[in-house]
Amino acid sequence: MSQLQPPDTLDEMRALLRHLPGPDLEAGTAVRERDRQLTKPPGSLGRLEDLTEWMAVWQGKAPPQLRRPRVAVFAGNHGVAVAQGVSAYPVAVTAQMVQNFVAGGAAVNQLCQVADSDLRVYELDLDRPTADFTIAPAMTEADCARAMAYGMMAVEPGLDLLCLGEMGIGNTTSGAALATALFGGDPADWVGPGTGVDAAGVRRKAEVVAQGLAVHRAALTDPFEILRHFGGLELAAIVGAVLAARMARIPVLLDGYTCTAAAAVLWAADRHALDHCQIAHVSAEPGHRRLLDKLGRTALLDLGMRLGEGSGAALAIGLVRGALACHEGMATFAQAGVSNKD
Amino acid sequence: MSQLQPPDTLDEMRALLRHLPGPDLEAGTAVRERDRQLTKPPGSLGRLEDLTEWMAVWQGKAPPQLRRPRVAVFAGNHGVAVAQGVSAYPVAVTAQMVQNFVAGGAAVNQLCQVADSDLRVYELDLDRPTADFTIAPAMTEADCARAMAYGMMAVEPGLDLLCLGEMGIGNTTSGAALATALFGGDPADWVGPGTGVDAAGVRRKAEVVAQGLAVHRAALTDPFEILRHFGGLELAAIVGAVLAARMARIPVLLDGYTCTAAAAVLWAADRHALDHCQIAHVSAEPGHRRLLDKLGRTALLDLGMRLGEGSGAALAIGLVRGALACHEGMATFAQAGVSNKD
Repeated sequence: MSQLQPPDTLDEMRALLRHLPGPDLEAGTAVRERDRQLTKPPGSLGRLEDLTEWMAVWQGKAPPQLRRPRVAVFAGNHGVAVAQGVSAYPVAVTAQMVQNFVAGGAAVNQLCQVADSDLRVYELDLDRPTADFTIAPAMTEADCARAMAYGMMAVEPGLDLLCLGEMGIGNTTSGAALATALFGGDPADWVGPGTGVDAAGVRRKAEVVAQGLAVHRAALTDPFEILRHFGGLELAAIVGAVLAARMARIPVLLDGYTCTAAAAVLWAADRHALDHCQIAHVSAEPGHRRLLDKLGRTALLDLGMRLGEGSGAALAIGLVRGALACHEGMATFAQAGVSNKD
Repeated sequence: MSQLQPPDTLDEMRALLRHLPGPDLEAGTAVRERDRQLTKPPGSLGRLEDLTEWMAVWQGKAPPQLRRPRVAVFAGNHGVAVAQGVSAYPVAVTAQMVQNFVAGGAAVNQLCQVADSDLRVYELDLDRPTADFTIAPAMTEADCARAMAYGMMAVEPGLDLLCLGEMGIGNTTSGAALATALFGGDPADWVGPGTGVDAAGVRRKAEVVAQGLAVHRAALTDPFEILRHFGGLELAAIVGAVLAARMARIPVLLDGYTCTAAAAVLWAADRHALDHCQIAHVSAEPGHRRLLDKLGRTALLDLGMRLGEGSGAALAIGLVRGALACHEGMATFAQAGVSNKD
């Protein structure tokens, strides 16, 4: 994908969905065939076995490999945070945290080091927040397509696994608006404390989402329009990165609630568009569990995390690494002289 | 502990429970104090924060460290497997798998390599299985105490984390018998497919457990007697290792169902005896979830694994490593110039 010029209109983005590569079933068969011979009862590594097969079918390689994982964190600012005070932290914290990422001081830095993963941080015009979505669409069509294209360019060929995360003060409100618009239900079902607002703050977030939906209802004609109206620039970039990773046959780990809500735009447009993605962890933000139910997914980790910045995805790299190490390094029954069940 | 001579009677083992060290609350306070200053919303790393505090209070160190993790796998053979055919695999597989561990070909070898952990495998008289517990107590008092002492000697001072696992054909039946005797209920609630027996095999396991309980009911006067009657040598060794780790202030990750059932002997004797342990993962073996409910615990991982051999515990080392790396490596709000909530 990244060798090509990324599309520069939403219609061209929509068109990409008609050309998504499918799973490489031959690689999947080869993985299952080897797995059957390894010195363990069939199925006894549970989801580690599924992870290996998933990596194989989306990389199109058996055995799959994990030499070049990348964590990509996209940062953006939100008009709704500037104007409506939906976060426990000031908007300036987005840029301050980007500096912290660059300096190596954030949680995701430490988790990438443990996971032996590359970390890249992408700023999207932090001094130019999206519009307050209670008044106007968050992004123009050109801005939305440009942010998606920016996310696409973060996907380099040769990566084995792409972990996506976000940083953006106020963006759980944006994520909740996306989820409400995509899946329906009461805004109160989709909002939560985020970085730590109190009960009144949570109610305020629900009102803001309800207001946005009321203002734009007639314009929400498809998932990409929903993204344009409620998404942040960093969330549009995530949507672009998920698409580009699919085209480049790079499996994706999605981080928490906001990241999954962004990716869900693609699922709403095409039920198979996220087949190359796993949900790394289920966030303590209550809307995430609901969102995973809608997507029919179970996260890999459930540790009550709610930090964002790709932290849960970076932590889950170790699970993929363990899965692939077992698949590649274990002896077969024949090699080890171990009696099989049959 | 391991500097001392291990006790050689069950009464001396029972006596150790009166001398268990408690948590180092000062280390816990120091960890919470530092955590409060790190560049993230309070609580946003969820159980990673709890893991760091747990490591600190049981190591008695702030910050806690993880330079020398060890995975210890104990292997034993079971008379009930020899005589009653409760497993999908022949009893010879226990010794064959020990050879596989030594040769580096098992799942746990690969997971230890990924986790950068030492792996030690301890054989307990593989050519001398325990007695068939449907007829006689599995172990004499001397054999049980000796196996516990053997497990204790595996605990070296200077380890930062001890991960415990087992290998023993037929030992899910032993584990189910321990669980039924310790917690009551129907044997059918505690047995499962293990390495992969069919529905008739699962019923057979329940009958074997019921028969053992009926034969020994009058003799099951305390948790250590329950261990002696139904445990394997490798399970007694795990009980010893958990005790010795507590005395040496080494936090413990318990692996799956059988390992937790062994450790539960201590919990039944003293409600605080497992406070220095975490359950690494919840096994697909259905009794494990029930057992965790009884112990009031939630496992760190839930990935449908059911291999044993310490595999889930080895995989969970990465979570502890991630937790400690965040705690030690993250910048404070003051260092990073990030605006705090207050």
